[in-house]
Amino acid sequence: MIPDPSHPLPEIEAYLRSCLDDLAFPPALLDALRYALDGGKRIRPTLAWHACEAVGSPGEASLPAAAAVEFIHAFSLIHDDLPALDNDDLRRGRPTLHIRSGEALAILAGDALHALAFDILARRTPSPALAGRLVDELAAATAGMIAGQVYDTLGGLPPGLSDRERLELIHRNKTGALIRASCRMGALCASSGAGLPPACASGVPLTSGAGVLPASASGSPHLSAITRYAECVGLMFQIIDDLLDVESHHDTAGKRTGKDAAQGKLTYPSILGLKGSRAEVRRLHDEALSALRPLGPDAEGLRSLCRLLAERRK
Amino acid sequence: MIPDPSHPLPEIEAYLRSCLDDLAFPPALLDALRYALDGGKRIRPTLAWHACEAVGSPGEASLPAAAAVEFIHAFSLIHDDLPALDNDDLRRGRPTLHIRSGEALAILAGDALHALAFDILARRTPSPALAGRLVDELAAATAGMIAGQVYDTLGGLPPGLSDRERLELIHRNKTGALIRASCRMGALCASSGAGLPPACASGVPLTSGAGVLPASASGSPHLSAITRYAECVGLMFQIIDDLLDVESHHDTAGKRTGKDAAQGKLTYPSILGLKGSRAEVRRLHDEALSALRPLGPDAEGLRSLCRLLAERRK
Repeated sequence: MIPDPSHPLPEIEAYLRSCLDDLAFPPALLDALRYALDGGKRIRPTLAWHACEAVGSPGEASLPAAAAVEFIHAFSLIHDDLPALDNDDLRRGRPTLHIRSGEALAILAGDALHALAFDILARRTPSPALAGRLVDELAAATAGMIAGQVYDTLGGLPPGLSDRERLELIHRNKTGALIRASCRMGALCASSGAGLPPACASGVPLTSGAGVLPASASGSPHLSAITRYAECVGLMFQIIDDLLDVESHHDTAGKRTGKDAAQGKLTYPSILGLKGSRAEVRRLHDEALSALRPLGPDAEGLRSLCRLLAERRK
Repeated sequence: MIPDPSHPLPEIEAYLRSCLDDLAFPPALLDALRYALDGGKRIRPTLAWHACEAVGSPGEASLPAAAAVEFIHAFSLIHDDLPALDNDDLRRGRPTLHIRSGEALAILAGDALHALAFDILARRTPSPALAGRLVDELAAATAGMIAGQVYDTLGGLPPGLSDRERLELIHRNKTGALIRASCRMGALCASSGAGLPPACASGVPLTSGAGVLPASASGSPHLSAITRYAECVGLMFQIIDDLLDVESHHDTAGKRTGKDAAQGKLTYPSILGLKGSRAEVRRLHDEALSALRPLGPDAEGLRSLCRLLAERRK
C-alpha cells in the first residue's frame, strides 16, 4: 500500500474511533478526547503500520501500537498548547482544546489519553508478553518526549554542547523518540511477541542505536534498520517543521507560525540557514532510504512515506 | 510484618528513590519528581506489598507494582492541585509543586511520573507477560481515576442517581480504582505472571467485582477476596478523608481543610452526617476484614493496615 500522509489510512481512522467506543467516561471528557484526536495527519500510526508491513506482517497487526502512539501524540499536543507551556490558541486550524473546553478539561483529557494509550496496548494486543514489550518502548519514548519538552521550554541542557548538539538533543527527545517508537513498535507487532529473548524481560533496550538482533529475537532481522530509518525520519521531520514555521502562513499550517523566531528559539534554519537546512533534509532522506536497503519490497510503504514526508508543505 | 502508615516500609522508600536514579532527565525535572514523591504516607505501595504477602510471596516481589502505583498517585496530586483544577497551594505541609517550581514544570513533572509508572512496570517486573498484566490493571485504574476527577470537578454524572450514588461513583473512580489496583497488582506480582489464562491476554477483566479465579490463573485462589477488601478500604479511606476535612486543621492534615464545605461539595458527612459517616467507616472496616477470612495468617499485614487506616487522624 502506498501511503499518503494527507489521506490517512481508513483502517487507522476507524480503529482510533473504536478505541473510544466502549469507555464509560463522562460525556464531556469523551467529547474532548474525540476533538483532540480529530484531524491529525496520523504520521506516527502510519509509520507503525508500514514498519509492520516492512517486516512481513499485514499492517492490521500494528493497529493497537498505531493507536497507542497517536493517543500519546494527541496528549502531548494538548498539554504543550496549555497557557503555562506554549500558550497556543490554534491547532489543526481549530481552537486548541483549552480554548474550546477550558483548561481543567484540557489537562484531564491529556491525562486520559496518556493512560488510555497504555490501556490499549494492554487490552488489544494478542498477548500480555507483546503488550509488556510494547509498553517498554512506548513508556521510555513518552518519558523522553517529556524530557525534550522540558529542555525546549525550560532549558537545563547539559553544559558544553554546541548549538547544533543542543538542538539535536532537544529534538531527538521531543519528536524523535515517539517517531522511533512508532516504527519499532510496528515492527515488534509483526512478531506477535513470540520468542522474545530473556534480555527483553528485564528491560534491556533491544538496540543501542545500531545494534542488530537475531531474527528469532525480534521476529525480524531488520529491527535495527527500521530504527535507523526512524531516527533519520524523526530528525528530518523536525527540520521541515522548523522550515515550515519560517516559510508558511498559519492558514496552511493550521497553527501559529513564525513563533520560533519571535521567541528567539534555537531552530535548524537559525543554525544551518534555509539552504543548509534543506540540504540536511535531503541527506537524512537519503540515509533513511539507504537504511532500508536490506528490507526489500515489503518496505515500499516506509520508503514512500519518507519521500512524502520530505516534501510535505504543512 | 505489621504495617504502620505513619512509618512507611524502608524497602519501599529505598525502591522509590532507586526508580529515579538512572534517569537521563533535565536536572530541574528530576528535582521536581523527587519533591513530588517525597513525604507521602505510601498507603498504596504498602497495600501492594501486603497483598503480595497475603497470597504467600515476599513483599519485595511487589516493589515494581508498589512504585508504579505511587508514581501514578503522585502524578495525580500534582495535576489535581493545579490552579485550573483544585488550585491548592499546600500539600504534605509544603508548597504544592506549581507554587514551588512553576506551572509549566508541574504539568510536565506530572506527565513524567505518569509515563515512568508504566516504564517501571515494563523494565522492572520479571517477565513481559507479568508487565502486560500489571499495565492492564494500572492503566484502567488510572483512566478511572481521571474520570472520577472529571466527575468531581466538572460534573457530568449520569442522571437519576441519588446523592449517595453520585458520591460513590465519584469516589469508586477517583480514589477507589487506584487503591483496588494497588492490592490486585500486589497479589498478581506473587504469581510472577506464570500460567496466566488466555482470557487475560485479550484484556478481559480478571474479576467483575466478585468473580473467582482458579488458583493456577492468579497464583492465588484469593484474588477476589483481596479485590473486595480493597473496594471496602478504598471507600473507607475516602469517608475518613471527608471526615478529616471537617474535623481537622491544616497544620495536622498538611493541606487546606474545610474546603469541601466552603465549595459546597458533596461529601459523606454532608449526606450521612458525622455519626452516620463514622458508622459507615466501621461497617466497611468490618467487611474488609471479613473478606480476608479465607486468607489465613499471611494476610495479617492487610488486616493491620485496615485497622490503622480506619483510625488515621491525618
